[in-house]
Amino acid sequence: MNYALRQRHAAARLQKTGAGALLVTHLPNVRYLCGFSGSAGVLVLRLSAGRPRAVFYTDGRYRQQASEEVQNAKVVISRKSAMTDACKGVLRAGVEVLGFESEHLPYEQYKTIGQIVRGRARLKPVTGLIEPLRAVKDAGEIEQMRAAALLGCSLFQTALNFIKPGVTESVVAGELELQARRAGAEKMSFDTIVAAGSRSALPHGRASSQAISGSGFVILDYGVILAGYCSDMTRTVHVGKITGARRRMYDAVGVAQMASVNAVRPGVTAGDVDRAGRQILKKAGYGRYFTHSTGHGVGIEIHEQPRLAAGQTQKLEPGMVVTIEPGIYIPEQGGVRIEDMVLVTESGHEILTPTTRELIEL
Amino acid sequence: MNYALRQRHAAARLQKTGAGALLVTHLPNVRYLCGFSGSAGVLVLRLSAGRPRAVFYTDGRYRQQASEEVQNAKVVISRKSAMTDACKGVLRAGVEVLGFESEHLPYEQYKTIGQIVRGRARLKPVTGLIEPLRAVKDAGEIEQMRAAALLGCSLFQTALNFIKPGVTESVVAGELELQARRAGAEKMSFDTIVAAGSRSALPHGRASSQAISGSGFVILDYGVILAGYCSDMTRTVHVGKITGARRRMYDAVGVAQMASVNAVRPGVTAGDVDRAGRQILKKAGYGRYFTHSTGHGVGIEIHEQPRLAAGQTQKLEPGMVVTIEPGIYIPEQGGVRIEDMVLVTESGHEILTPTTRELIEL
Repeated sequence: MNYALRQRHAAARLQKTGAGALLVTHLPNVRYLCGFSGSAGVLVLRLSAGRPRAVFYTDGRYRQQASEEVQNAKVVISRKSAMTDACKGVLRAGVEVLGFESEHLPYEQYKTIGQIVRGRARLKPVTGLIEPLRAVKDAGEIEQMRAAALLGCSLFQTALNFIKPGVTESVVAGELELQARRAGAEKMSFDTIVAAGSRSALPHGRASSQAISGSGFVILDYGVILAGYCSDMTRTVHVGKITGARRRMYDAVGVAQMASVNAVRPGVTAGDVDRAGRQILKKAGYGRYFTHSTGHGVGIEIHEQPRLAAGQTQKLEPGMVVTIEPGIYIPEQGGVRIEDMVLVTESGHEILTPTTRELIEL
Repeated sequence: MNYALRQRHAAARLQKTGAGALLVTHLPNVRYLCGFSGSAGVLVLRLSAGRPRAVFYTDGRYRQQASEEVQNAKVVISRKSAMTDACKGVLRAGVEVLGFESEHLPYEQYKTIGQIVRGRARLKPVTGLIEPLRAVKDAGEIEQMRAAALLGCSLFQTALNFIKPGVTESVVAGELELQARRAGAEKMSFDTIVAAGSRSALPHGRASSQAISGSGFVILDYGVILAGYCSDMTRTVHVGKITGARRRMYDAVGVAQMASVNAVRPGVTAGDVDRAGRQILKKAGYGRYFTHSTGHGVGIEIHEQPRLAAGQTQKLEPGMVVTIEPGIYIPEQGGVRIEDMVLVTESGHEILTPTTRELIEL
């Protein structure tokens, strides 16, 4: 990954805010800018004659990991507080306006930092400086995401093998997760959702200890992390022969999902993509059962920019990777969701998750 | 769980801050106070003549889950923003000083809330209001944590069965996690650590795709969540016959760990417990290789109060559940960590993780 280029892009955006340095505390942003994947540390991105100087501060627990992973930044191992050392370093460099990631930094830490730099630097809340850069993936990232998406797809058959009446949702998830590890995944990108029967009406039905029953939908929504990048996909299958009403639900979601997928191309707004599928579900009478937005960007984090929701005016750009995941959820009865990862290309889009969307009856 | 009692205790503490209501945004605190285990929502705890009135706000995705889980609080499903509705509800109730959880609330959300309530209520940062309550477990919680700890211990043998030269750390973790789900765990309480060979020198060596080699330490550090409560334990085993220097490392950690465990009783400080083990490692010449604190509270979250570290003056109380987990990490060579969950009792302590601490050679 070209960390130097990313830091230059970030520095160019930072310069416009008027801050002389940015405390990068949101760990996915830290990883994006210098490669560190651990769970504690802060990156200082300082402008020096308009060019970035990066210093990464962490503590003794991460000495080895930082020395292995961090690129294009000096590494400082703090004896006490990495944050305190980071602030002192900024002051020593003569920075007068210190930006911080205000969407991520807790208020209390903001106060603490304020006390450290008091009288010597002014704090400036900065929003959305790194995230828009991350929304547009470079060629190396697209390759990683393609691999993560395909790894995710390769697990689908394993999951199907375990979906049987009497098996708990949780064991289906566990078998899928073990297979993910065997296939080389670092971990799952979020808590695996296996939602069977009436639980399929829960949009976020994390696999529970409930056993799969003899008839009904099963929503499988899962993703892997491979080389730091997340995959995300959903398929809904049906245990037993499907009935007419359920078949109509499934088909409506399928048509709506394809409509939103087909709307994906450079220049359309995130709201347009949402509307394409949502209006189909509305016309079919399911509007009030589609209770969430259509999708989200995905990358180092499972939820990134852009947000594909009603009214969003952000325009899609080549290199964005988004999920398209409409659903119908009828309380007590059940639900259906179909989700793909879609890459915005120069001319339109490419589906990264080729697993069949045809209804599977088990 | 007695949510009414917890809310009364929280209300009593809130009253001392001068705030008329608290926006509870930290989800483990929300769960503690009203039972909601989902991933989006805000609880308003308002004082009405000194007594708590609780209202929980979430969005349509969590309608069913909230109706099933939330106790002792009115549930409001927001069409747009749960936070906005929560603030408006507080204003309608005539609250003039609105507390917020400043260790958890991002600065940007603080600003947003400030705009909603501007001119009608004053925001007051509140720290450590709910967490100290959570640090002391009630009888029901202790029962849950005992069950979670024993479930964790029951998985150890499964993990050992898979530790063999050539098997990747990640597959060992996956087999252990599948067994956890089979045994009824909701999920793991943190990313499973399986750190073999030179990777055992990483205090946080999340299971990687590295294969276990023919000789060396393997650190297993894992936990389950059962009924919302976390377990946490670490054992270090040795693949192949152990050498003299490694045996000394292992024995030093074992003696230090027992010393800290034996220091646990009501009235001693968290710093005392840290020192008991740390001074043994120092005397044995390993002081600089013990690079982290001795332990932490555990409960709904994997890391809770109290923090068992050098100089901490907080006193232990009956009902606290803490980890005791000293370690030695020698870069490039390897490491050892042994960790138990320990309950502070009226008269001393009780180890909740009875798995053997004797060295196992595989």
